[in-house]
Amino acid sequence: MKAIQVGLLGIGTVGSGVFNVLSRNQEEIQRRAGRGIEIAMVADLDTARAQSIVGNRTKVVKDAREVIANPDIDIVVELIGGYGIARELMMEAIAAGKHVVTANKALLAVHGTEIFAAAHKRGVMVAFEAAVAGGIPIIKALREGLTANRIEWIAGIINGTTNFILSEMRDKGLDFDVVLKEAQRLGYAEADPTFDIEGVDAAHKATIMSAIAFGIPVQFDKAYVEGITKLATQDIRYAEQLGYRIKLLGITKRAARGIELRVHPSLVPAKRLIANVEGAMNAVVVQGDAVGTTLHYGKGAGSEPTASAVIADLVDITRLHTADAAHRVPHLAFQPDQMSSEPVLPMEEIVTSYYLRLRVADQAGVLAQVTGLLAGAGISVDAMLQREAGEGEKQTDLIILTHAVREGTMNEVLAKMQGLPTVLAPIVRIRKEELA
Amino acid sequence: MKAIQVGLLGIGTVGSGVFNVLSRNQEEIQRRAGRGIEIAMVADLDTARAQSIVGNRTKVVKDAREVIANPDIDIVVELIGGYGIARELMMEAIAAGKHVVTANKALLAVHGTEIFAAAHKRGVMVAFEAAVAGGIPIIKALREGLTANRIEWIAGIINGTTNFILSEMRDKGLDFDVVLKEAQRLGYAEADPTFDIEGVDAAHKATIMSAIAFGIPVQFDKAYVEGITKLATQDIRYAEQLGYRIKLLGITKRAARGIELRVHPSLVPAKRLIANVEGAMNAVVVQGDAVGTTLHYGKGAGSEPTASAVIADLVDITRLHTADAAHRVPHLAFQPDQMSSEPVLPMEEIVTSYYLRLRVADQAGVLAQVTGLLAGAGISVDAMLQREAGEGEKQTDLIILTHAVREGTMNEVLAKMQGLPTVLAPIVRIRKEELA
Repeated sequence: MKAIQVGLLGIGTVGSGVFNVLSRNQEEIQRRAGRGIEIAMVADLDTARAQSIVGNRTKVVKDAREVIANPDIDIVVELIGGYGIARELMMEAIAAGKHVVTANKALLAVHGTEIFAAAHKRGVMVAFEAAVAGGIPIIKALREGLTANRIEWIAGIINGTTNFILSEMRDKGLDFDVVLKEAQRLGYAEADPTFDIEGVDAAHKATIMSAIAFGIPVQFDKAYVEGITKLATQDIRYAEQLGYRIKLLGITKRAARGIELRVHPSLVPAKRLIANVEGAMNAVVVQGDAVGTTLHYGKGAGSEPTASAVIADLVDITRLHTADAAHRVPHLAFQPDQMSSEPVLPMEEIVTSYYLRLRVADQAGVLAQVTGLLAGAGISVDAMLQREAGEGEKQTDLIILTHAVREGTMNEVLAKMQGLPTVLAPIVRIRKEELA
Repeated sequence: MKAIQVGLLGIGTVGSGVFNVLSRNQEEIQRRAGRGIEIAMVADLDTARAQSIVGNRTKVVKDAREVIANPDIDIVVELIGGYGIARELMMEAIAAGKHVVTANKALLAVHGTEIFAAAHKRGVMVAFEAAVAGGIPIIKALREGLTANRIEWIAGIINGTTNFILSEMRDKGLDFDVVLKEAQRLGYAEADPTFDIEGVDAAHKATIMSAIAFGIPVQFDKAYVEGITKLATQDIRYAEQLGYRIKLLGITKRAARGIELRVHPSLVPAKRLIANVEGAMNAVVVQGDAVGTTLHYGKGAGSEPTASAVIADLVDITRLHTADAAHRVPHLAFQPDQMSSEPVLPMEEIVTSYYLRLRVADQAGVLAQVTGLLAGAGISVDAMLQREAGEGEKQTDLIILTHAVREGTMNEVLAKMQGLPTVLAPIVRIRKEELA
């Protein structure tokens, strides 16, 4: 049988990984897929560079629309990224009846509803394993492997750059700015690292997982997004003393009144497996009512790990593209006419526990004032740590771990606490997730 | 559309889990599968007990063949276990054109070739996610999620009973026999624990994974199987001092001359995630050439975790059963006509590193004799630990970690070493896996 014909839009880091792995493992992949998978055409603005990667046997063009217009192409792989031209091309590929594979988390998190609807209507598949957690087959696990479960929550380290930075800050006691520069030098952070360090990339991925887990539309605009740029080394140290690690988690959770969807630094008990995921590695914990806790770990980025996910999608499509469209795996796990309208909760409505660091005057009565405010709002204290003031020092750090409370309530308490004359600096608040 | 009709053969721990989870999450599962999934009929020798589990709306019969003969039944779930009647019934169900879901690792590891061939010929699916690592969707990960990769090796904690026992031995410093009794009391070990503690259950699962990873037939008879019954607490302690944990691993690996397939206690560096998998939990590490290392963690047994896997298979079949048989996911990941005849290596041919514990006379020259034998066979020493002999003691323990060597070579050296007059007791040898 003729090999399935793939057109690549963009051949940068991931694209060249796809080309290399497909070439190297061609025979084995074909034995699995039942049919060859061939990159027949590549579109890239830098045609010379593209041609040097794929050699002379593969056609390279400048205009992506030539790939989409080619009737021989069965699957279009979009690796351009971003919301602009990538979106247009994806919609055009769908309209042309091509199956689409993409690693574009930003596009799916923001425009997924439109894209999946178009694909459903046209009877083509849009596959996106590479969009979340790189090489870890987490989309497949959520969409197929765990379908028996009512998913309770998902919490993931889904951005390697920030996990690398946090690991280095902890290991070496260095400040964020210093480590960021090191990460840039090593290639773990981009020249403009904003999307990573501000949590936007993780929020894109969490948004996609929330849709699959709970059968809601992708709603990136409803996600709470907080990065790691303001994280101080001393909080990592205090957390450690209390038995916790700080990780940037993407969290989505089924709560009584809706769905939580949030990305922020989180204290995680040091004994949890996910707390021990170091460097640029990713891991996603899924809590299901039947299966309990599962964890899925691996490389979340990089040329070949991401290519591994893209090619898995190509094999899936090759194996299943003859199936009638009504009997395929739905894009977002739930059948398109069975989506839920459960709301994504505003941040005030989420319930979690907290780590608080207060810079306080070293004088009698401070503790009583602070704990009085917490008690007044019904917030119970889980643990407390007071640094002994040094000789001659008039201030010290007071660390409090609370039990779970509504964020809105905590905000009110924090406003009052901040107003105490004995509280001498902005209070640091980091959310704490027990993940139990 | 009419719900897909499922017949359950056997309703013990797993069967009742399947019934309960399907009932509880009915609505959500239907929204995913696109169609209801209904247990229409149950066969169990204890019909009264079965009827009390499923209630009056589900038909219960004593004879499993009534289920198979029922033309309304689309999928037969075999939860009887063992090689005997389960095998007959599965073959009959396939012959009757039913799709089959099973958790029966023993049957598949031993008779899988015959079963998959029959299913392929008849155009039905035999799904078995629950056969390996319970609720962890590892079969799906290997068969679909990681298809881009040339798998290099798999190493898994795939038996919860033995991992529970090893965790307790380490935590509490207790001996194997004591912990086994405790495990039996707590329900983590069966009254007859032989299959678990002797490594047979893990070997069944490793056999299935080896077939999927390397495209070879299931060959349980070629697996090397060594359990944990002879493991001494002191070796767990010495390993810890050297920075290792001891885990019962199921390992399958692509080597130069064939496939390694083995189950035995293994030293694993304590810093590896899998070394920190405690209690009855399971975890499987997969090394692929593109994706690198992935780890898949969760509950490996129990009523609802196993049911989670069984139901995921039911949803898969519901979603895909209309696909033509040539375009489904192959049972063992590779197309049936594309299986490899690469041999499973005899144990003498595997290559690994070793932990050796020698009871030696506390006298000059012993170390030179022992290390001389290693050096003579070209085996280099990675680390060494000699317990200081107590006051008046004339013997002591000598612990050696070696670098990698062919097992056959190590066997020869050990035979010579055992013959040294200064070696006073049988040498303890435990394999060491760096998993890097």
